[in-house]
Amino acid sequence: MNPTRFASRHSCARISQVAATFALLGGGMSFAAAPPDLDAIRKQVVAQHEASVKRLKDWIALPSIAAEDLNSREGAEYMAELARDAGFQKVEIVQTDGKPGVFAVLDAGAAKTVGLYFMYDVKHFDPSEWSSPPLEARLVDKPGVGKVMVARGAVNQKGPESALLAALHAIRAAKQTIPVNLVLVAEGEEEIGSPHIGQLALRPDVQAALARTIGVFMPSASQDLDGVTVVSLGAKGVVELELVASGEKWGRGPGKDIHSSLKAMVDSPAWRLVKALDTLVSDDGNTVTIDGYPKAPPISAEEKAVVVAAAAKRSEAKAKQQYDVQHWIDDLPWAQANERLVSQPTVNIQGLVGGYTGPGGKTVLPHRAVAKIDMRLVPGMTRDAAVAALKAHLAKRGYGDIEVNVSGGYDPTSTDVNSRLIQAQLALLRRKGLDPVLWPRNAGSYPGFVFTGAPLSLPSAHFGLGHGSGAHAPDEYYVIESSNAAVQGYDGAVMSFVEYLYELAK
Amino acid sequence: MNPTRFASRHSCARISQVAATFALLGGGMSFAAAPPDLDAIRKQVVAQHEASVKRLKDWIALPSIAAEDLNSREGAEYMAELARDAGFQKVEIVQTDGKPGVFAVLDAGAAKTVGLYFMYDVKHFDPSEWSSPPLEARLVDKPGVGKVMVARGAVNQKGPESALLAALHAIRAAKQTIPVNLVLVAEGEEEIGSPHIGQLALRPDVQAALARTIGVFMPSASQDLDGVTVVSLGAKGVVELELVASGEKWGRGPGKDIHSSLKAMVDSPAWRLVKALDTLVSDDGNTVTIDGYPKAPPISAEEKAVVVAAAAKRSEAKAKQQYDVQHWIDDLPWAQANERLVSQPTVNIQGLVGGYTGPGGKTVLPHRAVAKIDMRLVPGMTRDAAVAALKAHLAKRGYGDIEVNVSGGYDPTSTDVNSRLIQAQLALLRRKGLDPVLWPRNAGSYPGFVFTGAPLSLPSAHFGLGHGSGAHAPDEYYVIESSNAAVQGYDGAVMSFVEYLYELAK
Repeated sequence: MNPTRFASRHSCARISQVAATFALLGGGMSFAAAPPDLDAIRKQVVAQHEASVKRLKDWIALPSIAAEDLNSREGAEYMAELARDAGFQKVEIVQTDGKPGVFAVLDAGAAKTVGLYFMYDVKHFDPSEWSSPPLEARLVDKPGVGKVMVARGAVNQKGPESALLAALHAIRAAKQTIPVNLVLVAEGEEEIGSPHIGQLALRPDVQAALARTIGVFMPSASQDLDGVTVVSLGAKGVVELELVASGEKWGRGPGKDIHSSLKAMVDSPAWRLVKALDTLVSDDGNTVTIDGYPKAPPISAEEKAVVVAAAAKRSEAKAKQQYDVQHWIDDLPWAQANERLVSQPTVNIQGLVGGYTGPGGKTVLPHRAVAKIDMRLVPGMTRDAAVAALKAHLAKRGYGDIEVNVSGGYDPTSTDVNSRLIQAQLALLRRKGLDPVLWPRNAGSYPGFVFTGAPLSLPSAHFGLGHGSGAHAPDEYYVIESSNAAVQGYDGAVMSFVEYLYELAK
Repeated sequence: MNPTRFASRHSCARISQVAATFALLGGGMSFAAAPPDLDAIRKQVVAQHEASVKRLKDWIALPSIAAEDLNSREGAEYMAELARDAGFQKVEIVQTDGKPGVFAVLDAGAAKTVGLYFMYDVKHFDPSEWSSPPLEARLVDKPGVGKVMVARGAVNQKGPESALLAALHAIRAAKQTIPVNLVLVAEGEEEIGSPHIGQLALRPDVQAALARTIGVFMPSASQDLDGVTVVSLGAKGVVELELVASGEKWGRGPGKDIHSSLKAMVDSPAWRLVKALDTLVSDDGNTVTIDGYPKAPPISAEEKAVVVAAAAKRSEAKAKQQYDVQHWIDDLPWAQANERLVSQPTVNIQGLVGGYTGPGGKTVLPHRAVAKIDMRLVPGMTRDAAVAALKAHLAKRGYGDIEVNVSGGYDPTSTDVNSRLIQAQLALLRRKGLDPVLWPRNAGSYPGFVFTGAPLSLPSAHFGLGHGSGAHAPDEYYVIESSNAAVQGYDGAVMSFVEYLYELAK
């Protein structure tokens, strides 16, 4: 999951009717019978603040990192316990060919059922790059922001997820009725591209439970420091892969690292990688030049208007500061840069690794060089088609020996603006006096395709007030006490989930 | 120093007369008075075998690695002690702006004076890649080779250097006269490109002492497993440098690693590096395409004949096996591949380092990417001209922001085949029934330019029987007891130095 938010209207009204039908199948009518006592719940949220923050802090102390094969079993068990503790009556750890997931159901006897998508894994990290130990979840004063929790997983995604769990605790403590039934799927491989999400979400009984929901949402922190709250209608797809040039596969160059003086008589897999990479993008590095790569559909006038309006509400200066960027691609103005962000597929080099990577030099001719790549996909593209195009492109140019090792990824995902999941967000935010930014498509990615695609074909979205930043980076944080009037702190985030659940029940 | 040997005749008869003049300035005539008792010396070599190998082993246990700022002071002190122990009367540690060197003089009262070039540093290493701990210097049975010492520095260069010191010990123990005076310069920065060798070798008193020599040689292991013994007439030059593309210097792209989804609106320094690298070599990676880069002078008919003759003596199959290579560049036949090795400049990628380099992926857009490069230079080229051409090439193409950080390097070096240093090798080897291969130029590099260039303008070469391999690589080794009749073990290497010194004295 990625905090950069932006979405699209390429979507599918396919869902609302299905959802409406299922809504009729629900159980009790307790919520409909009496409006909730939100003040009582709010008091409980405040009363439980310390306990809720401690719950988050304890969770952060157990990082599950699939890429490092770290604590996945433990993380799934912890997630299961958190769900039980929050009132889910049926909680099961689901084995997959990768890391285990968690499937949980909270039957509130409500008319409607809502799906929740959680991830219990976090991105890997290098503690030496952090100003505060990433697993200690210290509360730190951040000027202009407030008291923030600095930790790996703070905003991506344990902070917002813990706030949703805190909402359930508070409703129960206030002796109010949880207004919707909940179906939770939590995976432990989000940060490696969710390679087994289908084995979790589409296991027959899980799929059947999800099919009863009006849609699936992931708790998030949707407010930025400008006070802009984003409602996103989807996300780009993504493929993560490694391109590997090696003497072994090439049949030229060395099969092991040899002395660099031999370059005069021996071919170089590292140069071969450079030459192959060179063909993938335009000279400025910004336009994908893979043969047969699907072109981005032109951005619609409607989308464009949304992006321009949204850009006007967001501070370009703050974005440049946040990313430490002086110019956008092609020196585009802010609105056009955002259009590009929403609409363009990308091929990005995440990392280059070849030969000697330590300090100084080492006179070797490496037998192997690797480019770590991610490709972002826009509607009309699929993960499989993008990978096939890349492979065909390389083969056509004589680079068929370069390995394309796909480690994860999924198709783009879009949700209808008219779905209850989105309309409830808009209604709630507007009632609170927030003027939400409807965003066509996140440039980042999450595996919403498993919910929005066949066979489930459900709406899928993110929701949650509050703010955080630094996902995948050092000093990731989540606001606990906000000093910015336009941004909610932890208790405000918890209340936003309380109110969203009641709104969804309507 | 690099074990791949090959040299050139591009050179300069400038020296022999100067050397001859200085020879007359020498002291006693003790050697001329009586032929040495080589049998007595040989007995001492055998008697001292265990002590000599232990001396080498103890030296290896103290690795000096300039790139890692490890043990340079300690290594210089150790080197100084080894010199004193071997009979050098004047031994001094010479401070430089980098790591210290050692300057030592052994006055044997001889007519002639010979220079020695040592390095006390070794290449860095990763013990996990070794089959035997690289500092334990274990003796290991190597099929078809014999008992070899596996250690970092075994052949590059402590093994051969220790064998020369053992020769001095043996001559003295046999109560024979050391036949030449010796001037030793030992540096601790060879493996980082000898950035301060001039501050050592050209310090006025050191320069004056060297100027009295008939030339300078470095102990080496010149036999390959085919039993071919190489006499090399020089070495290519080298430049080691890093090319660094960064958002900071470019003014585009991010100033820190940011989320990869932002690639759709932010430029990528990693792509910029790839695009700049692409311009440096031909599509096959084998021809330098840097504008204004000096062209390699055509290989002379004489050099070509030497290379063809030498190639015929050496096993192509063994070379392919040694380097794990199936094809030479352009599928060249063996002799032509060797011609290319001797004659062509190169631009090699030693390493690529950018963004996320750990296991799996990490969705970042890196702010910085680095290519570690070495360029090998042939006669007619200089280090400074090569660097200037590279910088101009990048600037002309708009890549002036890419940093060119030179960490070390030096000009090519050549020595006249008619110099006493070379002729003494040829005479000795032929007398021993070995048919030496005269090689135009090492493809690898060593800082011989400081001796062969102005102001010293001396001959400079390598010499030593024996065999080793794996310099800069895991499982570097040096033969201690040879099971191959065509290759000398440690005692044979020691005796080769004894005999070379007597031959030089003639």
